Amino acid sequence: MRQSLWYSHEIRARYQETDQMGVVYHSNYLNWFEIGRTEWIRGMGMTYRQIEERGLFLPVVELEMKFNQPARYDDRIVIYTRVAECGHVRIRFESQIRRLDDADGQPSHQAAKGPVAEPEGELLVTGQTKHVWVNSSWKPVRLDKEAPDLFRLILQNS
Amino acid sequence: MRQSLWYSHEIRARYQETDQMGVVYHSNYLNWFEIGRTEWIRGMGMTYRQIEERGLFLPVVELEMKFNQPARYDDRIVIYTRVAECGHVRIRFESQIRRLDDADGQPSHQAAKGPVAEPEGELLVTGQTKHVWVNSSWKPVRLDKEAPDLFRLILQNS
Amino acid sequence: MRQSLWYSHEIRARYQETDQMGVVYHSNYLNWFEIGRTEWIRGMGMTYRQIEERGLFLPVVELEMKFNQPARYDDRIVIYTRVAECGHVRIRFESQIRRLDDADGQPSHQAAKGPVAEPEGELLVTGQTKHVWVNSSWKPVRLDKEAPDLFRLILQNS
Amino acid sequence: MRQSLWYSHEIRARYQETDQMGVVYHSNYLNWFEIGRTEWIRGMGMTYRQIEERGLFLPVVELEMKFNQPARYDDRIVIYTRVAECGHVRIRFESQIRRLDDADGQPSHQAAKGPVAEPEGELLVTGQTKHVWVNSSWKPVRLDKEAPDLFRLILQNS
Repeated sequence: MRQSLWYSHEIRARYQETDQMGVVYHSNYLNWFEIGRTEWIRGMGMTYRQIEERGLFLPVVELEMKFNQPARYDDRIVIYTRVAECGHVRIRFESQIRRLDDADGQPSHQAAKGPVAEPEGELLVTGQTKHVWVNSSWKPVRLDKEAPDLFRLILQNS
Repeated sequence: MRQSLWYSHEIRARYQETDQMGVVYHSNYLNWFEIGRTEWIRGMGMTYRQIEERGLFLPVVELEMKFNQPARYDDRIVIYTRVAECGHVRIRFESQIRRLDDADGQPSHQAAKGPVAEPEGELLVTGQTKHVWVNSSWKPVRLDKEAPDLFRLILQNS
Repeated sequence: MRQSLWYSHEIRARYQETDQMGVVYHSNYLNWFEIGRTEWIRGMGMTYRQIEERGLFLPVVELEMKFNQPARYDDRIVIYTRVAECGHVRIRFESQIRRLDDADGQPSHQAAKGPVAEPEGELLVTGQTKHVWVNSSWKPVRLDKEAPDLFRLILQNS
Repeated sequence: MRQSLWYSHEIRARYQETDQMGVVYHSNYLNWFEIGRTEWIRGMGMTYRQIEERGLFLPVVELEMKFNQPARYDDRIVIYTRVAECGHVRIRFESQIRRLDDADGQPSHQAAKGPVAEPEGELLVTGQTKHVWVNSSWKPVRLDKEAPDLFRLILQNS
């Protein structure tokens, strides 16, 4: 598989996400990774909500994170997401959290939306999450058998 | 209905619950109110999990909160909960969040467990939550018809 | 004071914000109210981060919420915020959470951005939060004395 | 360094921590890891709050998690924590999340408190977190120089 493009999605760090060290509490970056995956799927022209409505779920089975710099309240954050591996039962996402410039709280420029070759901004957190496709009884399923259209769509976007 | 006893349950304020003001972020007190209700129900000899397994749910429809003093990381917190009104369809809980003394991080005394007449500790937050009994389709139901045993149990403990 | 305009800001409901009832857990709407206030302040041409850097803080001292309908995962949510009262020491915000149409996960239309006279979308939650201006020692301060420029700015936008 | 004992601490899974898959949302296990570290430190006879008051902080710089089984609402959870490596600047913790039996919502037995050689209960999540000691300017510091008493205390408990 060739190296896939990064899908970018911009958010602001929330006050609720900060802790008493004055930075974003570390578990919140995992929530941001999930938002990135949700938007990556939407970028394919489908939604994760629709996938769940078909009885398919994608729980996390393993993950890694590295923290370079902390995000702070109201920072302009870009979540970058791409598929690193896509098997019949398993899928692995890579994620990056970066900070954009934000002079006086007013965005100084627009972040690139959607698929990009090169992430921009200051690197804060990197990580990866491994997932297994399961049915509503939490039994692993082969995506190429259960939902061949979805499997092809992911391959095309990976 | 006579004034019911307060049911007490002790927790510690978590690091993740603090914000950059150095105090517990205000929405977390709502989570604590819920923990108080969960333990109030366990104190009756039943669990809210069992209630949901019977197809009954108790969403919040209205609430109020007053903030006197903020909780801080690692504070010894007591959640006090009591039923203020118990109708056939609606139930209203009152909640208090209080802070206990904690010299050098070692509890200086044990908080009273279970039902108490008088809350102790420094008052931090008070509030109330109003709930409606619904079935799994979110339709309101009369608890005295749907689950008369549960209805009686709540009345006895209110 | 004339009735002020509503300031609108759009978000998506996050997976992390859902609970096992399949809806957004109720304390998350408080986080959304806060996002609304943050964006209301940005709409004035200032940021709450800048206000805190001047040593002024705006903790919540009291609040009320009413829940009409629950939000669900990936819903397009609009947070509406306006100032209902603005005194020298106290300020009261009103908030509404509404849901926009979202055929197939693709926004069917753009929500109005910024100040609007009439909120649109299905009403999910309403509420209000009362705040007191404090300094970094949590002592109440008169905003018109401590930061007359900020006080005037808020009045103009209320 | 010999293999250190596991420090155990029991909690209940909160309703707010569940998601619409009916299980505890994965980022919450990171919060539980942190609770485990907080209690591990308290088990040494000190508190993390006291450490921060001395101007020392312990941010996470890297982590890994593996998910075997999901926790569910109101599960009796034991967090097991131990120090796997303790250097002058860096420290690595290992964490396990396990589920205890809980017939009818009433604990069927008491979990061992404090240091134990063998974790008990059904294994749900394992992981490790790597940390660096920093001062209040986020500069790495040598703990054996900055706080030799604390450094010795950790070594004795590792």
